[in-house]
Amino acid sequence: MDFRKRYGEFLMNITDVLGLVKDKLNLLEKELKNNLDSDIEMVNEVAYYVFQSGGKRLRPVFMFLSAAMFGYEGYRDIILSGVVEYIHTATLLHDDVIDGAKFRRGKLSANQVYGNDITVLCGDFLYSRAFVNLVKDGDSRVQMILANAAKTMSEGEVFQLVKTASFDLNFQDYEKIIFSKTAVLFSACCEIGAIISNCTMDESEKLKDFGKIVGLSFQMSDDILDYLGDPEQTGKKPGTDLKEGKMTLPLIIMRDLLDAEELEKVKKIFSSEPSENDIEYVIHLMKKYDIKRRGELFVDSYTLKAKKILSELPDNEYRKGLEFLADYVILRDK
Amino acid sequence: MDFRKRYGEFLMNITDVLGLVKDKLNLLEKELKNNLDSDIEMVNEVAYYVFQSGGKRLRPVFMFLSAAMFGYEGYRDIILSGVVEYIHTATLLHDDVIDGAKFRRGKLSANQVYGNDITVLCGDFLYSRAFVNLVKDGDSRVQMILANAAKTMSEGEVFQLVKTASFDLNFQDYEKIIFSKTAVLFSACCEIGAIISNCTMDESEKLKDFGKIVGLSFQMSDDILDYLGDPEQTGKKPGTDLKEGKMTLPLIIMRDLLDAEELEKVKKIFSSEPSENDIEYVIHLMKKYDIKRRGELFVDSYTLKAKKILSELPDNEYRKGLEFLADYVILRDK
Repeated sequence: MDFRKRYGEFLMNITDVLGLVKDKLNLLEKELKNNLDSDIEMVNEVAYYVFQSGGKRLRPVFMFLSAAMFGYEGYRDIILSGVVEYIHTATLLHDDVIDGAKFRRGKLSANQVYGNDITVLCGDFLYSRAFVNLVKDGDSRVQMILANAAKTMSEGEVFQLVKTASFDLNFQDYEKIIFSKTAVLFSACCEIGAIISNCTMDESEKLKDFGKIVGLSFQMSDDILDYLGDPEQTGKKPGTDLKEGKMTLPLIIMRDLLDAEELEKVKKIFSSEPSENDIEYVIHLMKKYDIKRRGELFVDSYTLKAKKILSELPDNEYRKGLEFLADYVILRDK
Repeated sequence: MDFRKRYGEFLMNITDVLGLVKDKLNLLEKELKNNLDSDIEMVNEVAYYVFQSGGKRLRPVFMFLSAAMFGYEGYRDIILSGVVEYIHTATLLHDDVIDGAKFRRGKLSANQVYGNDITVLCGDFLYSRAFVNLVKDGDSRVQMILANAAKTMSEGEVFQLVKTASFDLNFQDYEKIIFSKTAVLFSACCEIGAIISNCTMDESEKLKDFGKIVGLSFQMSDDILDYLGDPEQTGKKPGTDLKEGKMTLPLIIMRDLLDAEELEKVKKIFSSEPSENDIEYVIHLMKKYDIKRRGELFVDSYTLKAKKILSELPDNEYRKGLEFLADYVILRDK
């Protein structure tokens, strides 16, 4: 059976899931903006610019659902998901400077509007602002999870810079990169949601693993969309990763399928500054070798594992929300 | 009486002061290197490159002396001064990227050796590594002091970028900038030294103020040396701040002394890309108007205030060490 049909059986959609945590999301938006209380107007301006442009707030949604699944009713998930968004945004600001990005979420990126210098510093501001709120929250277990996550994320970016220029990147190193880049923070969100609701250690460990696996599949699906998404939906030109010389899942899968001549050509394209024609050629090959479907099937094996973990946790609408999200990271088209 | 003569009366010198905390400094060097335990070799390499080049470890010395003055005998000052050096180094790495610096402490700067991208990320790594150790230490009062210090430092850098391009920068804004840039971390070191030795709130507040004032005078004296230091001693070409369009103390003092024609010329030089001749001209004027002495006298008023605060604290060799350092920040020639 086509695995996509299996997904059709679900009764929820993304609007239903977001509806479960709508009030939380509204409180979070207020929290994010209320904290922009710097004496230095420019700092608030840049942070406001970035937060106003939205973003899916997917990490907070994972934390809210994880906490709600265990009946959490307090306000700490608002504060702590705000901390996560600060850390996440700080890394985006620094990444955009490093990649010389021009756009972010359909708007000019902060580095284009405010310059690299102010953008780097506002990233630093958001890191330290996050830390201030974490200290106020006062839970050393949560603090350690996020401190280690931030550490892993910066290490992972360095590893990516050092490694992904290599066409021979193996899957293990690729997974290490996307763990650091994405999955560690998803994992932290789910674990923290569990911890603040005082569930058992076994339960919080399960949510930690769930978050990690969903985070990996989220990034893999992102990497597939980068080549094979519909630009009308993603709002991005296909092939950015190829342009930036980043070796990702679709190319790793295709590498083993190409004939000798194609392989030689793709290898050469990857190692040079690819032209628009080069990118089109690589995408053409990806379509020829059905990489979207192969990639999605590969990601699907992660999703199944993630949902198996969930099946051992309390069955309620919030768990169903998390199940849906595990699917959504594959099925989404942007 | 020439204020420099007054300094001659002291019985200590910098070697004596460092001798008081020699064992601590050795332990700190080990601590700094032991913590470079990243899985990612490149991260360790960059951090090692930066720490190996030394630096005066002035901030740790302030913490050690502050703690020892109140009889502290534990190991927390090693850990926490390591945290301070990580935060300080992270800001240096990011500053060097922002300023496009070529050298740091007589060696090629990290951005020159490893590139801007890796340098920004290693700064982030050091921030988060600092945070991990702070969480391990577990003292929320200390955590809050350093979280707020990091926040103030990033805000201050933004404020500096926005403000110091202005030739009309007033002294109040200048002081705000150097507080954020330098004094807040000196202040944190002294306060933390006091806090971990369980002294009274009144005593830790005094050390906090002492550190702030010494930090301000340290940065002011640095800004004087930037124009008027002996390049053989400082290892830097004079006039870097002028080149970078930063309005600092010597120029602020001189601004009010120049005749109309000189003022016009200097203003024009400040607002353009100054040539070597331009820089020489400004330094020539600074000598003509005796700015070194005027500047030092101005800083001296801070030092006197700082030592007045110390006089109310326990009288022992560690206090004498701090007194000497308060003088040293003026008298040093590098």
